[in-house]
Amino acid sequence: MQLAIDRYPMVALQYGATEGFGPLREAIAARMSVSGSAVPAERILVTTGSQQGLDLLGKTLLDPGDTVLVERPTFLAAIQAFRLYGANVVGVPTDAQGVDVDALDALVARHAPRLVYLIPTFGNPSGALLPAERRRRVAQIARHARDTVFVEDDPYGELWFDAPPPASLYSEAARDAEVLDRFVYLGSFSKTVSPGLRCGWMAASPALASRATMVKQFADANTSTLAQVAAYCYLDSGRLPAAIQRVRRVYAQRAQAMGDALEAKLPGGAL
Amino acid sequence: MQLAIDRYPMVALQYGATEGFGPLREAIAARMSVSGSAVPAERILVTTGSQQGLDLLGKTLLDPGDTVLVERPTFLAAIQAFRLYGANVVGVPTDAQGVDVDALDALVARHAPRLVYLIPTFGNPSGALLPAERRRRVAQIARHARDTVFVEDDPYGELWFDAPPPASLYSEAARDAEVLDRFVYLGSFSKTVSPGLRCGWMAASPALASRATMVKQFADANTSTLAQVAAYCYLDSGRLPAAIQRVRRVYAQRAQAMGDALEAKLPGGAL
Repeated sequence: MQLAIDRYPMVALQYGATEGFGPLREAIAARMSVSGSAVPAERILVTTGSQQGLDLLGKTLLDPGDTVLVERPTFLAAIQAFRLYGANVVGVPTDAQGVDVDALDALVARHAPRLVYLIPTFGNPSGALLPAERRRRVAQIARHARDTVFVEDDPYGELWFDAPPPASLYSEAARDAEVLDRFVYLGSFSKTVSPGLRCGWMAASPALASRATMVKQFADANTSTLAQVAAYCYLDSGRLPAAIQRVRRVYAQRAQAMGDALEAKLPGGAL
Repeated sequence: MQLAIDRYPMVALQYGATEGFGPLREAIAARMSVSGSAVPAERILVTTGSQQGLDLLGKTLLDPGDTVLVERPTFLAAIQAFRLYGANVVGVPTDAQGVDVDALDALVARHAPRLVYLIPTFGNPSGALLPAERRRRVAQIARHARDTVFVEDDPYGELWFDAPPPASLYSEAARDAEVLDRFVYLGSFSKTVSPGLRCGWMAASPALASRATMVKQFADANTSTLAQVAAYCYLDSGRLPAAIQRVRRVYAQRAQAMGDALEAKLPGGAL
């Protein structure tokens, strides 16, 4: 932390650009580019946690009565963020592999929703992992949904135990530039670096990123530059991959312990 | 900064309560109590800069078409924050001493505004300082405006050069408990500690503070705990009063230099 202030004293304690600290936006864009196609920094807006990403999307895109499709069940604070803008939130059925893509297709056709909100990688609260073929199907559905924005919320994508998850919805969508512009990716450092930073990001079309930046300017001016510089210095130190490995090990142990305890304590066959 | 993490390691890097870090709320409440009557910590909501205070007030209180009275001219980002919630923003005339209280009285009676937004101490952009008798008059006007919330935005109150400003509107209002509940005070550490923290606060009635906390939960979950703990440790170190003295001296020198330059460069009598 002291390093962050020593290295960027004129940035860390001052006001900053609403769209985020330049080197951090570049570093995030580079990280996202590795896992799929190239993501330019102009698509990245740093947010005060990914919760702010949900709020900015609501404020930028939703009018009262607009429909938002979400997995049933999904993250409660996302439902609330959209409802505060008067959204009509409609649930899409899910199974053990995540959202039911046939049902999603039908509901998109029926409601012409303004937003579709998905957590494809380790859904909250389900933990479900959407398979690659369903991800491709979501990108296909988006092809015919010109007025819909598809939001991929991905706070947990790095926290896999055995095998990495399939490529993100965002990188599936990137196969077609027009479809890509209908997708938004919400990322977070809360589960990998620290939730105390309140530092996340949104990747969106340049037009939507620019509108969300305008809205953010009047919401909190900019995300704490101290937190942004700290996040950047941590990324730049090269320590994140090892930290993520450590976090994966700890969570895997905890999951195992919980599984064992449930098996031992619950009546046989309940799991 | 390192001190903040060393002293509160389990807080500074974790999620925190939406209403703010307890010791910081207590310290803010104590600071506000010194300048007038007692302010309990339950009235304090820590915000991501005072800009977020404006956004939360808009989201909590404004419906499209509601009237907001503001000084003419006033802080542009406040107008924009309110307009994003559909407010009808109406200007109140001002003179060299700040808002014209007779005009304010008449416009409150005519519009029954949902909000009245004032910067009584060193207005932005005017720099005007509202005299004590006008502050008392604003509190009197509020007595008859049951459905109006009066917002005192006070980012500059500590930055006086020669004599301290009159007591805040908030402490004028505190003479009557019912009137006090119609007042909101927005404070900021941006001009005294650092804008990079994005750490400000709102003092409001317990009912309004509680509604704004709910709304904040879905806006950014909580203000960076790292920034809050850093702000608290700075306050607690006792270094703030000397820092404020230093800031006052620097700003006084700059104001003098600008005044001298204008006098030297502009045609005689233009000032």
